[in-house]
This record gives sequence, C-alpha cells and structure tokens, in this order.
Amino acid sequence: MKVLLTIKLDQTQIKQMEDLGYEVLFENERTSDFSGDYSEVSILMTYNAFPKLSPKKLPNLEWIQLTSIGFDQVSEAFNDYLITNNHGGYSPQIGEWVVGMILAMEKRLHRIYDNQLKKKWQPVMDLTSLKGKTILFIGTGTLAQESAKRLQGFDVTILGVNRSGRPVDYFDRTYPMTDLTAVLGQAEHVINCLPATPQTTHLIDQAFILAMKPGANLHNISRGRVVVEEDLIAHHDHLGMIALDVFEQEPLPEGSPLWELPNIIISAHNSWVDEHTTDVRFQLFYDNLQRYKAGERLRNIISLERGY
Amino acid sequence: MKVLLTIKLDQTQIKQMEDLGYEVLFENERTSDFSGDYSEVSILMTYNAFPKLSPKKLPNLEWIQLTSIGFDQVSEAFNDYLITNNHGGYSPQIGEWVVGMILAMEKRLHRIYDNQLKKKWQPVMDLTSLKGKTILFIGTGTLAQESAKRLQGFDVTILGVNRSGRPVDYFDRTYPMTDLTAVLGQAEHVINCLPATPQTTHLIDQAFILAMKPGANLHNISRGRVVVEEDLIAHHDHLGMIALDVFEQEPLPEGSPLWELPNIIISAHNSWVDEHTTDVRFQLFYDNLQRYKAGERLRNIISLERGY
Repeated sequence: MKVLLTIKLDQTQIKQMEDLGYEVLFENERTSDFSGDYSEVSILMTYNAFPKLSPKKLPNLEWIQLTSIGFDQVSEAFNDYLITNNHGGYSPQIGEWVVGMILAMEKRLHRIYDNQLKKKWQPVMDLTSLKGKTILFIGTGTLAQESAKRLQGFDVTILGVNRSGRPVDYFDRTYPMTDLTAVLGQAEHVINCLPATPQTTHLIDQAFILAMKPGANLHNISRGRVVVEEDLIAHHDHLGMIALDVFEQEPLPEGSPLWELPNIIISAHNSWVDEHTTDVRFQLFYDNLQRYKAGERLRNIISLERGY
Repeated sequence: MKVLLTIKLDQTQIKQMEDLGYEVLFENERTSDFSGDYSEVSILMTYNAFPKLSPKKLPNLEWIQLTSIGFDQVSEAFNDYLITNNHGGYSPQIGEWVVGMILAMEKRLHRIYDNQLKKKWQPVMDLTSLKGKTILFIGTGTLAQESAKRLQGFDVTILGVNRSGRPVDYFDRTYPMTDLTAVLGQAEHVINCLPATPQTTHLIDQAFILAMKPGANLHNISRGRVVVEEDLIAHHDHLGMIALDVFEQEPLPEGSPLWELPNIIISAHNSWVDEHTTDVRFQLFYDNLQRYKAGERLRNIISLERGY
C-alpha cells in the first residue's frame, strides 16, 4: 500500500512505516507541484496539499490523515473521504501558550520588552494580577481543557461555553451556546477555541465584541475565520489586549490594518509548535497505520458535516 | 503618636490611621530632602528613605514598617530598631510573574514580538513545552510557594532547596542547601527566591552557573546582589534564557553589559506590582498599627541577624 506524505518525517519514522508494509512517497506541500504519479496512493498524510491536489490525481485514495486539528483547509472535493485529524496532539502546548499569553497581558511583558529594547530603566506601574479574575473559553474541547487545567493554581474562575452547557473537567461553570451573550460580560479574558465550521464562522463580530466587558482581553488560538477582522479593527478600543495566533488569511498580509492596532499581539500561527510535535503526530499516524492494516476503526475520524 | 510615611497613601487610608489616633506626616522618599522636624515620630513607614535619614533625625523612633519584603536597603544605623516587612504581600503576583516569565521563555514570546514589530509573518519553529520539565526554586518561602502552586497544572517536577531540606507544600522534592550543586544540574529552570543576606550574597557565581544544565534558564526575582553579575555576563552562553528583575545597582546603569546579552530579559524591579499592591500593603500596616496601639506583638517582625 502506498502512502503520500506532504509533511516531512524523519528516516526512522519512514523505516517504521516501511516495516509495516507501506511504500512511502514524499512531496513537500509548500514547494512541490505534485506532478508525479500518485495513482496507487491509498493514504495521504498532509496538512494542506489540497490547493494542489484533486481526487483525480489520487484515484485510489481511501484515507486522509491530517496533521492539524482543524480541517477547514480540506477542499470540498475531498469531503467524502475517510478523514482523521490530529485531535489532542497539539493541546498541551497550546494550553501552555494560552496561559503564557494571558500572563504576558497581565504583566505587560510586551511594554516591558519595549523598554528593554531602548535600554530604558522604567518600572511599568500598571501591571495587574490574574488572581480573582474570570477566564471564559468559547468551546470546551481539548485545547480549552488543557488550558483550564493549567489555570487551576491561579485563583481564577474558569467558565466555558459549549453546545449543550454540559459540565467539563477543570471548569467552574459551563453554559450552553444560547447563553453566550450574557456570559461574555463576566470575563476578563475570552479565549476562542472553536473549530471553523459554518456555524462558528464570523461568530466573533461586533455584537460579540461589544458584549465583552470594556477592557477585557480577547484571544484567538483556533481558526481565523471565527473572527470578523473588520469588526475587531473597528472596536479594538473596547478591549484591553487582543492576542491573535490565527487569521482569515495566512500569512497575514503586510498591509493588514491588524498590524497597526496598538493593543494587539500577533503571532504567526505558532501556538501548536513544540519540540515533541513531530513525534506526537507521527505516533498517532503510526497507530492509525497499524489499525488500517488490521482493518480496525481509525482514531480521530472527523465528520465534515458535524464540524469536528 | 506620629507616623512618618515616605510612600504615598490615599486620603481614605490616612483618615483610617487618624481615626486610630495617629498623626500622619508625609515626605516622598524619592524627592524630599527630609528637612522637617521628625522629633516626635515614633513610627516610620518606608521602602527606602534610609540614605536620607539617620536615627539622629528620629530620636523617638520605635518601629519601622517596610513596604518591601527584602530589607537589604536598611542602613546599619537602624539595625537595632523593631522592623517589620511586607512578607507575603507581594507573593501572589510574583508567583504569576514567575510562571509568565517561564512561559515567555519556552514560547519564545520575545522573538515572536520582534517579528511583530517588523510586521513580519514568520512562524518561530523552536518553541518548546514546559511539560515534562523540572523547575528548581532556590529558597522555598512564600514567593517560591506561590509560584509552585501555580505550576501544579503544568505536568512539571518542582524541586526546592532550603536550609534544612524540609518538605514544603507544592514541591515534589526539597533538598538542603548543602546539596545545591548536585540539584542544579537537574533543572531546566532555576529561580532565585533567596533574600539578600551575608550568606546568600554572590551565591550565584561562576560555579553555580556552570553547575546548571547547559541551555537551562535562570530567573532572579528576589535581590540583585545574590548574583555575581560579571560571572553571569562571562558565562551567559552556558544558559538558555536569563530573566532578571533585580540588579546589584538599581536603576541598572545604561552602560551595564547586561543590556547587551543576547539571551536576557530585563525588567525594572517590576514583578511585585499589581493593582492591589497599595491596598494589601496598607492592610498589613493598618493591622500592625492596631496591634501597636493595643501593645500586641506585631506581624512580620524581621531579624537582621537571621536575615528574614
């Protein structure tokens, strides 16, 4: 059975796949023009080769393993394939990222660094404490749970919004999505953890932003298209700090007005990266390759219709 | 009874003191030349008016309430007075600061911000996770405890070194100071929480630094004189990142070579600041004023000899 990788794995990992009986092809999704012969490929492991691939080039494709959790990059032509994602694979490091970003805001780390760059000794006297504050996660999946777990020691109240309002570990209270507007006004930090689906697209619009407490902080670590960027730009001064790791268009264009906001922290879709990333996502893929060979049900099958 | 404040309190707080029967004088310790008549002052509330005051100017002084935890600023001439400090008053926010700084290092927040300043979309691919790492606190007092409490959710091992090696809440293991060198090699983050005493002065020297794991990170949030700054400059490349909030000389001189280190985060003795600072330190002072009036034992009496 042939596997097409569009994300680099190391030689040991490829050897492990070959030892299971797979033949491995590699094309770098960022640089390849995919002009080879993939007619015998039955498995595709990719983050986003979709703009360059069509089902016609992969007539025997049976299964797509994504290296991402989100899958809004999958083109419609592939909707009917068996697709698995990297659910949970990036959650611990993103949980750390979220706490880091919350504290960077409270402790004014960026302003303090501005002073350091100027070699200026200037105590910043408006640092604040997280203690006693309320953190609200929109979506209570593994990203939110790993974040909330790490916030347990900080003497904060942790709220979550999910479809049904079902209780979730590490959350003090959870609410159904229908209560969103009322809950938004309670938190000093609001963190978007929702996947991009037709239902969540542009959820964070003017009404959402203005329902937040004045001076509260907004974080987006899931998918850019959940936010109406024009509304955020128009109402940025209603908010304290804004931390965006994801954007409607990535790379974020040099001319985007987001770069100009005085209260924004911009990172380049970076929160998922750590030194274990490659190993962890390979372990999931390898486990699924074993299951696939044995005819067992794969882990992390996603439903494009359901949206997760 | 007369109280001399050299740190500004607000009118409500001064009214509360007056209602207890105290008469309140105020001189800003940074700008006043202390040329007034303080002969009837029995209580001094100060951070560091010591360079400008002598016991001669305060012939009836009985008690000094410090607004700081450390007291290396107290000049020797005042050694025999009853002195109380702000023990515990800054610990929660410094605990938050420590976790924020650890995460800023792991997540390369300063490098990511460098890119933002240049409006450059550039994923930083050497972000790391805290998960699985070891954090070592030198000193296990309230600063270290409040930090360790907040690290509980991060899947880290938390070690502490104190005089006797006695166990402390939130620490996985503690060691006596005699084991310091061996323990230093185990941690990815080493955080100095020791007060400045004759025993701790210049503890963090070349031998200390080189006993740390290559690439490990060093934090100082207590007092600058615990570190031999020349040794840190000479061996900075043995370390990953260095975060200093305190320095032998403050303000840190513009010409200090510390500013030039490529792997340093410099803040201006800033970790103690939050929006509650003034209230919390006044509450302790007010409580002590009540005790003083009633002839009861004050809270947070320090021993200059013992060093804490």
